[in-house]
Amino acid sequence: MSRIPFTELGRDGPARTGRLALAHGLVDTPAFMPVGTYGAVKGLSAPEIRASGARMVLGNTFHLMDRPGLEVIAGHGGVDQFMDWSGPILTDSGGFQVFSLAALRTVTETGVTFRSPRDGAPRVLTPELSMAAQTALASDIAMVFDDCTPYPASHEEACASMALSLRWAARCRAHYAGPGLLFGIVQGGLYEDLRARSAEGLIALDFGGYALGGLSVGEPKAELYRLVARLAPVLPADRARYLMGVGTPEDIVTAVSAGMDLFDCVLPTRNARNGWLFTRTGVVKIRNSGYAADRRPVDPECGCYTCRNTTRAYLHHLQKSREMLGARLATVHNLTYYGDLMVGLRAAISAARLEEFVDSFYRSRHKRPPRALGELPEDEPVTTITL
Amino acid sequence: MSRIPFTELGRDGPARTGRLALAHGLVDTPAFMPVGTYGAVKGLSAPEIRASGARMVLGNTFHLMDRPGLEVIAGHGGVDQFMDWSGPILTDSGGFQVFSLAALRTVTETGVTFRSPRDGAPRVLTPELSMAAQTALASDIAMVFDDCTPYPASHEEACASMALSLRWAARCRAHYAGPGLLFGIVQGGLYEDLRARSAEGLIALDFGGYALGGLSVGEPKAELYRLVARLAPVLPADRARYLMGVGTPEDIVTAVSAGMDLFDCVLPTRNARNGWLFTRTGVVKIRNSGYAADRRPVDPECGCYTCRNTTRAYLHHLQKSREMLGARLATVHNLTYYGDLMVGLRAAISAARLEEFVDSFYRSRHKRPPRALGELPEDEPVTTITL
Repeated sequence: MSRIPFTELGRDGPARTGRLALAHGLVDTPAFMPVGTYGAVKGLSAPEIRASGARMVLGNTFHLMDRPGLEVIAGHGGVDQFMDWSGPILTDSGGFQVFSLAALRTVTETGVTFRSPRDGAPRVLTPELSMAAQTALASDIAMVFDDCTPYPASHEEACASMALSLRWAARCRAHYAGPGLLFGIVQGGLYEDLRARSAEGLIALDFGGYALGGLSVGEPKAELYRLVARLAPVLPADRARYLMGVGTPEDIVTAVSAGMDLFDCVLPTRNARNGWLFTRTGVVKIRNSGYAADRRPVDPECGCYTCRNTTRAYLHHLQKSREMLGARLATVHNLTYYGDLMVGLRAAISAARLEEFVDSFYRSRHKRPPRALGELPEDEPVTTITL
Repeated sequence: MSRIPFTELGRDGPARTGRLALAHGLVDTPAFMPVGTYGAVKGLSAPEIRASGARMVLGNTFHLMDRPGLEVIAGHGGVDQFMDWSGPILTDSGGFQVFSLAALRTVTETGVTFRSPRDGAPRVLTPELSMAAQTALASDIAMVFDDCTPYPASHEEACASMALSLRWAARCRAHYAGPGLLFGIVQGGLYEDLRARSAEGLIALDFGGYALGGLSVGEPKAELYRLVARLAPVLPADRARYLMGVGTPEDIVTAVSAGMDLFDCVLPTRNARNGWLFTRTGVVKIRNSGYAADRRPVDPECGCYTCRNTTRAYLHHLQKSREMLGARLATVHNLTYYGDLMVGLRAAISAARLEEFVDSFYRSRHKRPPRALGELPEDEPVTTITL
């Protein structure tokens, strides 16, 4: 990679703040990316996404290839223009969706053949096709096409899958000619030796950034936290580090503390549609009858449109009446909650007060911090990954 | 009525502009009211409703009594506060919903007994209960509880129904003690003599405004236009005149020309959700495949958020993908189309150029004006209604 657009701006232990200078704008890290599967963060306009604090949106290549198709989006100049976002976009490779959605999937050295979940038509996706697709989408960050290792997997299965992903990563690296940065994805299941080999192989290929993939697929939280704490430090400090598909506010606080920079998850948006609202003191399940006449805002400390202008009773009513405004207002709030969390984390790291921030985060939720990051069980050997 | 808050500001033939000074704000007429059935104009925030040009929203008493219930809304200080609208609200009486939604409806002199369409529980609605409900909702304009005459109806049926509505109107007039204006509703089916008797009886009761009800229920357009043209002039000039549940842009242009002031209809909002978009040159059915790659705005002359920021291709994609943002963006556009139409009508009347406006309205849509307003068939006797 000739261009290294990531600048580390501050540190507090393994955690860091930084800035990504991308084709469509700047992104301060640590950053959370809302998921805009079909070219829309469900229910929200671009100004609302921006008001939440988000500066980069994730688009799903697999879904966008299906609808509206690459030609239409390329005709608009990219996903960001198509969805009136006009800001940074990260696209996944389509690999995870093929893995999780497509029937009759067959993996070969060339790529994956599968049947379209929409019309059953045979389709193929390869590293080269994924790179071409992400080029047409004009994303600021493109991801390598990888094989997603299932959980659980034996060491042998995880090893073969990781090795295939590595060979595909080399083909992606050679083929990608889009306007964005290409990120490698560390695979290897829950096996530290495989993860180390994957990271080593990817770093040798010199990607624009590095992601941890194949996590948050059903493994215990402690395993996720262990791997993140051990892997983050071995990823190059001069590139952004992206933890894919994670997670809860607790997951993000933990992973930021370990040195990760970028996150995406459907949790704030999907939970909003189901009436689960994040607040500084815990989750408010707004459909509970206890909120039917509650005239307080969802979170009195929140400055989002929803909290400034509506009551819990109104949100309760909208959700119970299945009014789409309910999903929208809840999504505005949840994304603002995530946005504020990232602002708080960035400020805490800049001020070298992350530990204080994390303590206060758990105290306000009446929870104890998870065992992680050096607090591993005594009987578990603390190994350091070396490449 | 001690307070007459309607001021006529301009005239052009039977058409007029005016201003309603209501409890929660001013409404310039002619005005269109978006329908906010359950305390939400589906998908839209209050600022978006306002940006469309709408200044009064219609709430459905029957639905709001069911969900969230009067107590919750009264606790918020009224529908306008509950839904964060903080502007004028007109509520219907619940009569039309009981008529059209409720099973096993029984009408007696006292009122209507029916089974809740939600849980089948027996319910009753009377003029007095409707007045109490609309008082709890704190609407700026409340409507009398009336019996909706079905279409078609014999003269005898329509007469009995109209007479019952008139007796109920007197009970409403005596009972209403809310913060708003109470409007009478002229009934009588398609029979001009019954409509005249209804208007006469209501005017004797001295309401804050007068509505034409029981129209747009399946009768031919020519019948609607004929009745509106004949009835508008007999309604007091110093009170607002409201044509309930109407209608298409053509209907509104015709009724404004006849002297009507207020309108409500689900058409712009419901059609938006189904992908029918109103434009200055006619309807755009955005789900048609011809728009799949169309990078133009829906209506290049429209200044709404949707037209300023998105393409037909994006709206097509959102509607085909069933993304709720598609319904929202289409609703923003359609309500702005209606809002702009009312602005145009008010300006044309003020400038005494309504005929020119109507000609241009039809010309841009490549349509001929409907036969109405003095252009009745030669073999039909042109009678003038006298009270």
